[in-house]
Amino acid sequence: MNMFKDATIEEIEKTMQEAWQAFFTYRKMSVAQRAGFMKAIAKKLEATGDELIEVAMKETNLPEARLRNERARTIFQLNSYAAACEKGDWLSIRINTADTTTVPPKPDLRKMMVPLGPVVVFGAANFPFAYSTAGGDTASALAAGCPVIIKAHPEHAATSELVAKAILDAAADTYMPTGVFAHLHGQSFEVGKALVEHPFTKAVGFTGSLKGGKALFDLANQRKEPIPVFAEMSSINPVFLLPEKMQTEAKEIAQTYAGSITLGVGQFCTNPGLIIGIDNGDLQTFISALAGCIEEAAPATMLNPGIFKNYVEKRANSLTMPEVETVAVSTIEPAMYQGVPTIATATAEAFINNPFLHQEVFGPYSLVIKCKDITEMETVATHIEGQLTATLMGSLQDIKNNETLVSLVQNICGRLIHNNVPTGVAVCEAMQHGGPYPATTDARFTSVGPDAILRFARPVCFQQWENELLPDALKNENPLGFWRTVNGSLTREKI
Amino acid sequence: MNMFKDATIEEIEKTMQEAWQAFFTYRKMSVAQRAGFMKAIAKKLEATGDELIEVAMKETNLPEARLRNERARTIFQLNSYAAACEKGDWLSIRINTADTTTVPPKPDLRKMMVPLGPVVVFGAANFPFAYSTAGGDTASALAAGCPVIIKAHPEHAATSELVAKAILDAAADTYMPTGVFAHLHGQSFEVGKALVEHPFTKAVGFTGSLKGGKALFDLANQRKEPIPVFAEMSSINPVFLLPEKMQTEAKEIAQTYAGSITLGVGQFCTNPGLIIGIDNGDLQTFISALAGCIEEAAPATMLNPGIFKNYVEKRANSLTMPEVETVAVSTIEPAMYQGVPTIATATAEAFINNPFLHQEVFGPYSLVIKCKDITEMETVATHIEGQLTATLMGSLQDIKNNETLVSLVQNICGRLIHNNVPTGVAVCEAMQHGGPYPATTDARFTSVGPDAILRFARPVCFQQWENELLPDALKNENPLGFWRTVNGSLTREKI
Repeated sequence: MNMFKDATIEEIEKTMQEAWQAFFTYRKMSVAQRAGFMKAIAKKLEATGDELIEVAMKETNLPEARLRNERARTIFQLNSYAAACEKGDWLSIRINTADTTTVPPKPDLRKMMVPLGPVVVFGAANFPFAYSTAGGDTASALAAGCPVIIKAHPEHAATSELVAKAILDAAADTYMPTGVFAHLHGQSFEVGKALVEHPFTKAVGFTGSLKGGKALFDLANQRKEPIPVFAEMSSINPVFLLPEKMQTEAKEIAQTYAGSITLGVGQFCTNPGLIIGIDNGDLQTFISALAGCIEEAAPATMLNPGIFKNYVEKRANSLTMPEVETVAVSTIEPAMYQGVPTIATATAEAFINNPFLHQEVFGPYSLVIKCKDITEMETVATHIEGQLTATLMGSLQDIKNNETLVSLVQNICGRLIHNNVPTGVAVCEAMQHGGPYPATTDARFTSVGPDAILRFARPVCFQQWENELLPDALKNENPLGFWRTVNGSLTREKI
Repeated sequence: MNMFKDATIEEIEKTMQEAWQAFFTYRKMSVAQRAGFMKAIAKKLEATGDELIEVAMKETNLPEARLRNERARTIFQLNSYAAACEKGDWLSIRINTADTTTVPPKPDLRKMMVPLGPVVVFGAANFPFAYSTAGGDTASALAAGCPVIIKAHPEHAATSELVAKAILDAAADTYMPTGVFAHLHGQSFEVGKALVEHPFTKAVGFTGSLKGGKALFDLANQRKEPIPVFAEMSSINPVFLLPEKMQTEAKEIAQTYAGSITLGVGQFCTNPGLIIGIDNGDLQTFISALAGCIEEAAPATMLNPGIFKNYVEKRANSLTMPEVETVAVSTIEPAMYQGVPTIATATAEAFINNPFLHQEVFGPYSLVIKCKDITEMETVATHIEGQLTATLMGSLQDIKNNETLVSLVQNICGRLIHNNVPTGVAVCEAMQHGGPYPATTDARFTSVGPDAILRFARPVCFQQWENELLPDALKNENPLGFWRTVNGSLTREKI
C-alpha cells in the first residue's frame, strides 16, 4: 500500500519515552508559547506549496481544488485554536478566595485546566489535512498542552510524512522540546494497539469507522489505567421531511439534497444517508425529483480502493434486501474506483425491523424511508441510533405542530439542523461535531471548534497556594487578562 | 442486612420506562423549574427532623453531630446546585451568528448543554446524605435535566428510604412528572447490573470502592451503547514533607496530620493514607510526634461490619508485609467494630517495588515512606497512581527548589494542596473532587461543585433555527440574562 515501514515496538517505546519527557516541559509552557508553535505549524503548512497538494491528490484521489480548500481550512483551524488557546476561556478558571469566618474556615481554592498527557491521534481517510496529521485533534491536543503522536493513515502516508515534516520544522523553529510531536507509520493494527496500550499514552483521538474506533475504545478501557478515547465514527445524518413544507417545496428540497448526498462522492461523516418522509403525493414528487438529479449525477473516484470496495459491498447489501427498492442510480458509466450515486426506498416498518438498514453506507447513497404518518415517523426517530447531525425540513408551523418529533430528534443528535443541509462543518465556538454513540464514543465532547481542546484537558484545583507560586492564570493580578469565575461571578478583574 | 426486598427485573423495567417518559417532560422544564424542585427537596430534607438522624445513626454508627452537619451540607449542596442551575454558566452557551459574506456562507449556529437522559446513582457508604440518595450526584443530574434512579446503599437502606420519600414529596409539590425520581433497593449485585445495562440508562454516578466502581465502568462500556460512568473510587492522598519546612515544623505537622488521619475514623475518600518524607532527624521528630498522637487517639465505631472487616484485613495485610514496620497503634482498647488508629513505615524502595502498599486501607491508617533524598522522593511520586488530592508541606523555598517534584505531584492529582490537609471538601465552583484513575474513571470531571453538573450533560448545536423556535437560553433577546460566548466574546447582552 505505501512505501513506509511499520514502526517497531522499540521505535514506539522510544517515541513514548520522548513524548513523556516532552510533556513535563511542554505542559509548563505558556499559552502564548503553545499558540506560537501552532501558528508556526500553520505557516509551515502554507509553505508546503504545490508538492503537498500533488502528493495528496495521488494518494487520495481528491480533486485539487478540494485539497487546496482543505489545507486552507487546516491552516485556519490551527490559527483559530491557537487564538482560543491564548484567549484562555477553555481553562475554565474558577477561584474561591479563603473565608475564615465560616466553620470550618474555607481555604483558598483555584481551579484551571491542565493537559492530560501524550495524545495518540489516528488520521482520517477522508480528511488528509483537516482531520489527520496537523488536523483538529492535533491542534486541540497541542493547545491543551499535550504532546502528540500521530499514527499516519496508511492510505495517505506520504502526505502525512510531508505534513509531519512541516510540524517538526515548526517545533524546531519555536524551540519546542524533542518529543512534543512524533510521526509513526503502521499498516498493521498492532502499531495502533501498542500506542493505545502504552502507559504513557493518556488520551486518544480517532476519526474513522465504527469498527476501528470501537476497537480502540475497548483497548483503552481494558488498560490497567483506562484512558479517554474520543472516536468520531458512524453517522447516517437523518433528514425528516415535514408535511406543510413538503406541500410547496418538495422539488427544491430534492435538488438541495441531491447536492448534499453527492458532495465529495458522499465521503463526509455528515453525509445525509437517511431521508424520512410521509408516504403521500408530495413525497412522490420529492423522490421523482431526487431520482432525476441522482441519475444525472456523475460518479467520481473514491478515496482509495478499500473505501470503494466497502461502498460497493454495503450498497449492494442494502439494495438486495427484499424490503429495499432501488429508485435511482446514476446513468453515467463509472470508471474504475468510482462511486455511483444511488437512491433507494424502504417502508418505516422495514427500517424499524431491520437494524442493517441503520448502518452507514459510506459514499453517495441515501435511503428514503416512507412513513404512514407522523406517529410512525416518531417511531422511526426512536429507533435511530446516535448521530452527528439530524435535520428537520419543515415550516414554522410544522415545527410547532410536531413538538414530540422535534424532541425525539434532538435527543439523538449533536447538531440539530432546520431547513439546511448537514454537510459543511464550520470551525467556530458554536459548532458541535459529536453526538451520542455510535456517532462518537462520548457525546459530551466535540471534535470541531475550540471546545475540542477540552477532550484533552482536566481540572486541577490549587488549595492554599501563595500568589507567587500559582500559575499566571490563577494569580490575583490576572496578568493574562482571562475571564475567570471569582467567588461565583465571571470577571476579568484582578482580585 | 436490611428489611427491604431487592427490586425485581419487572420493577426495574417499570422504573426505567417511567424514567424515560419523565425525561421527555423534565428535559423541557426551565432551569427555574428544575431549581424549584431541588430547593423543594432541600426544604423537605430539612423537615425530616430528628427521625432521619436517629435512623441514620443506627444504620451508619456515625455520631449525631456529624450527621446533622452532613444533612446541613446536603441541603446547602442542593440549594447551591439549584442556584448554579438557574445561573446557567454550566450551559456553556456559544453563538455564532450567520455570515453570508463568506464562501460558503456560514449558517447561524447556537450551542448549549442538554441532559444525557436517566442517570443511575449508587449511594456511598460513608456519606449517607451528602453522597447518597439526595446527594451531589442526584443534585447534579437533576440540575442537568436528567431523571434519577437511586440504587440505595444496602447498609443505610432505611435512611435512604426516608430521604427518597422527601424527594418524592418535593416532586409532587412542584408538579414534576412521575418517574423523575425513583428509589430501588438491591443487596445483590444483579440489581445494579440490570440498572447499568438497561438501554434507557444514559449515565451512572458512583462513589465507593475501586472494585465496585470498576465493575460498573466495565459493564457500561460493554453495553451495545456504551455510557459514561463517573465513579469516584480509590485515593490514598499522598502528603510530601519537604526539608526546609520540616526543619522547623515537624511536630506541628504531625499534630495536624494526626487529626486528619483519624477524622471520621479515617472514613473519608480524602484521608491521608501515605506520608512521604526524607529519612533524617526531622522525619524522626515527625514520626515520634505523630506516634504520640496516634497512641492517644481513641478507636471509634466504623460505618458497618463490612467496612470494619475490610479495615482489619487490609491493615493486617499491610502490617505483616516484611518491609513494613508498625510505628504506633492506639493504646485505647477498642470496642466491637471500632477501627484502631495506626501508623507504620516503609522505605521508598519497598514502596516502589510493592504495589500492594499503594492500595487504599480505608480507615484511620497511614503509611510513612522514608526516602533517601529528594531524587528518591521524585521516584516515589512517579510510582503513585492517580489521586483525588496530593499535598506538599513545604516552605516557599522548598517549593521553588523542587520544581520537578511539584510538577510530578501535580500530574497525579485533581487537587494540589499546599500546607493544608486534604480532609474537608468545600462545595464551591473552584473545588475539584476527581482525579486520574483509579481516583475516578474520568479525570476530566468533578463530583463536587457546580461543574459536577457537566458529567450529565452534552452540547447540542442548533443550526439555522428561527429565533422564536429556539430555547430561551439561545434566543436573541437573552431573556434569562445568561453569560454567552457570542461571535467569540463573552457577554450578557442581547444580539
